[in-house]
Amino acid sequence: MAADTIVATATPYGVSGIAVVRLSGPAAQTITSVLCRPENGAAPAFPARTAVLSVVHSQGAALDEVVITYFKAPGSYTGEDVVEIACHGSPVIVESIIAETCRLGARVADPGEFTRRAFLNGKLDLVQAESVAGLIQSKSVESSQLNLRLLRGQLSERLFNLRDEIISLLAEVEFELDISEDDLNPDLVPRAKNTLNALVKNIQTLIDSYQQGKLLSRGANVVIIGAPNVGKSTLLNALTNSDRAIVSTTPGTTRDTIDYPLILAGVPINLIDTAGLQQSSEQIELEGIRRTHIRIEEADLLLAVYEPPCFDQSIDFNYRPSVPLLNVYNKIDTLSSDKRQNLLTDDEGQLYISAKTGEGLGHLKTRIKSAMQISRSTSEELMLTSARQFQALSVCESNLKQATTLLQSPAVAFELVSVELREAIDAIDRLLGKTTADDIINNIFNRFCVGK
Amino acid sequence: MAADTIVATATPYGVSGIAVVRLSGPAAQTITSVLCRPENGAAPAFPARTAVLSVVHSQGAALDEVVITYFKAPGSYTGEDVVEIACHGSPVIVESIIAETCRLGARVADPGEFTRRAFLNGKLDLVQAESVAGLIQSKSVESSQLNLRLLRGQLSERLFNLRDEIISLLAEVEFELDISEDDLNPDLVPRAKNTLNALVKNIQTLIDSYQQGKLLSRGANVVIIGAPNVGKSTLLNALTNSDRAIVSTTPGTTRDTIDYPLILAGVPINLIDTAGLQQSSEQIELEGIRRTHIRIEEADLLLAVYEPPCFDQSIDFNYRPSVPLLNVYNKIDTLSSDKRQNLLTDDEGQLYISAKTGEGLGHLKTRIKSAMQISRSTSEELMLTSARQFQALSVCESNLKQATTLLQSPAVAFELVSVELREAIDAIDRLLGKTTADDIINNIFNRFCVGK
Repeated sequence: MAADTIVATATPYGVSGIAVVRLSGPAAQTITSVLCRPENGAAPAFPARTAVLSVVHSQGAALDEVVITYFKAPGSYTGEDVVEIACHGSPVIVESIIAETCRLGARVADPGEFTRRAFLNGKLDLVQAESVAGLIQSKSVESSQLNLRLLRGQLSERLFNLRDEIISLLAEVEFELDISEDDLNPDLVPRAKNTLNALVKNIQTLIDSYQQGKLLSRGANVVIIGAPNVGKSTLLNALTNSDRAIVSTTPGTTRDTIDYPLILAGVPINLIDTAGLQQSSEQIELEGIRRTHIRIEEADLLLAVYEPPCFDQSIDFNYRPSVPLLNVYNKIDTLSSDKRQNLLTDDEGQLYISAKTGEGLGHLKTRIKSAMQISRSTSEELMLTSARQFQALSVCESNLKQATTLLQSPAVAFELVSVELREAIDAIDRLLGKTTADDIINNIFNRFCVGK
Repeated sequence: MAADTIVATATPYGVSGIAVVRLSGPAAQTITSVLCRPENGAAPAFPARTAVLSVVHSQGAALDEVVITYFKAPGSYTGEDVVEIACHGSPVIVESIIAETCRLGARVADPGEFTRRAFLNGKLDLVQAESVAGLIQSKSVESSQLNLRLLRGQLSERLFNLRDEIISLLAEVEFELDISEDDLNPDLVPRAKNTLNALVKNIQTLIDSYQQGKLLSRGANVVIIGAPNVGKSTLLNALTNSDRAIVSTTPGTTRDTIDYPLILAGVPINLIDTAGLQQSSEQIELEGIRRTHIRIEEADLLLAVYEPPCFDQSIDFNYRPSVPLLNVYNKIDTLSSDKRQNLLTDDEGQLYISAKTGEGLGHLKTRIKSAMQISRSTSEELMLTSARQFQALSVCESNLKQATTLLQSPAVAFELVSVELREAIDAIDRLLGKTTADDIINNIFNRFCVGK
């Protein structure tokens, strides 16, 4: 239990109806009582979980009428005494209240310090703590729903079950180490192999879920590239039903890259229009092209746009095979009906569209989803949402596979199997925060905003 | 009591620990119960003023873990049933909760609609309602404290007392109208005059407080003007202890106007550095000068800066006598000690400073305060904070003065005195919102943010 009391705003900076200042720590209640004490009156009391109308004081005078809610330890977010002060949403009032609480002994909280305390006090494990950041940063309903499942411990429970099974297996293996080789249980090796296969399959499902979980959590950058004037901005406008990008028949209209958010099957997509790529010596155009290349480096999917008649023209950029690329043939509305008929018949798999008329856009969206392996998630599915989760389970899986390989040997080295199983358990423990180095914990909580 | 239920976010838009969604109206509790009903469970109950941990649902799945607080009518901000939902601070979660409540029968609130309902339900009068907006927009502690005194009804009480005194006087006057002239109470006229004098004095004090109340509430624009290179940006930096403005020895360094907030004796000052005023044909400089003239139009105080040796050079701008102007003679550090001694001895009242060394800045701040009639307010003082309050009391005062004049006449026309007193009462009633046209009410509440 932390010895000091921390304070921070839990709501965004700005002018609004309400702002919430939050205190956590042993002095939270005392500080609030003094803060709300009338000039010639007794310090008020705050019954637990009850909204109490009160007045806070600053610089010797009444500052604001507020609603105070006290959450008694351990029944609070952090597991400590917590007080939430809902004041009028003026930054001056918020700052004055924080300054007064600090004068009375509180300290301004570091980013994520409330949730860190919740973790240290055993209210959340690390997977749950990560899901709090995920909830706050969620950009789609599906992403909120997924992170809530994690916050409510559904992934943690599954990890605890995996851990229990590995521990049972480890117990059996270590028992064999203590007895003579002759008394070896003949069942053990085949049973252990079965158990390990089932565990690996289970973990593999979770690891595979990371692609989708990552997209749901952080979204995806879809970058539209191509030569000047092939209709990139028109395509952005068509896909987003907007007129966000200026379109004209003049090549090189787009200079700055343009970001537009949309949601595709629950996945938050950042659709990005860029300046056309071509040889140039013009200063502003070169700057636009430089920016296009930066966005290409951040892409999760590239849409390369072409126009007739050069449907095979090349685009000069740093191609990485790991980033999926869709070739999009635009402006089919400008083709003669014969030529068009030929195209559509010959190349069923190709993406022929008209951003102008909207033809082929439905098909393009389907192809975008499949290229990024986006599928509508069900409301029960569990997915990994952080690289840390992905890496820990990959280590765990590799230990279990190594253990399986060791069991194939005619003379099984149970000592080595035991080591692999222990490392697999360690990986899960680190993931849940049962044994985690300080620097990893710091890294997780530093990504939070102050006040959470 | 309004028939429908309104919903809005009460916290600013942004990613944060907590956001608060607020419902008000007869269905607030029912809607929240359905919103939080588990898939196969009963709708939860929410006891009044108790913080209850719950889960909201959206699109058929659990969306977020929230804290619900129910305020039962009439013991709530609006006087209606109110529910506050404190969710995780993701705009997606906030928008989903609002969308779900609307699906369940709520309607998105107009700006200020919660406070308008508080007014319509008799929880606040119009002066108090204005103070809510004042609290939210307060830019200094003193301004919050003043608006809180208004919210707690201290100005309203004083207005009610004034109103009662005028009504008593009116009753006496109207009694005289009903009886014959011979039975006229000989005391009435002198007593009425005394009462009116006291009332006018009382109201005059309030009217006079508007200058300070206005500055406290909305702040003041202090614009630094002068020829190029006289040290305007250096002065801004010196007064704000910052390096906000780029300074160089090249004339015309500042192009865009630069705003910097500071607090002077509780008054929020917006200090504005501008481009130097001079004849020019250079395009960017002309644009800078154009912007300088716009800021001069918005000024509450002008600081005209000069440098040696031309302490009397002219600055070309649209001078308005209603806006106070201070002439500031800068760069006295560059003068020979003789010349300097002469200046300082000769012109005690003049403002000789060195923005570079800091000499004379304390004196300048004092002069800024006195030029704008800023005085440190005490923590009990009542001030008018809106033009509406100022105008209403000015009308009231003028009616009372007119009544006094009528009483001077040898043959007093009591009918006319009665009319003036009635109009004075009407002015106070309009001010408090007892009899107020819809368009005035609309005008007051439209200035609120949504969610308050």
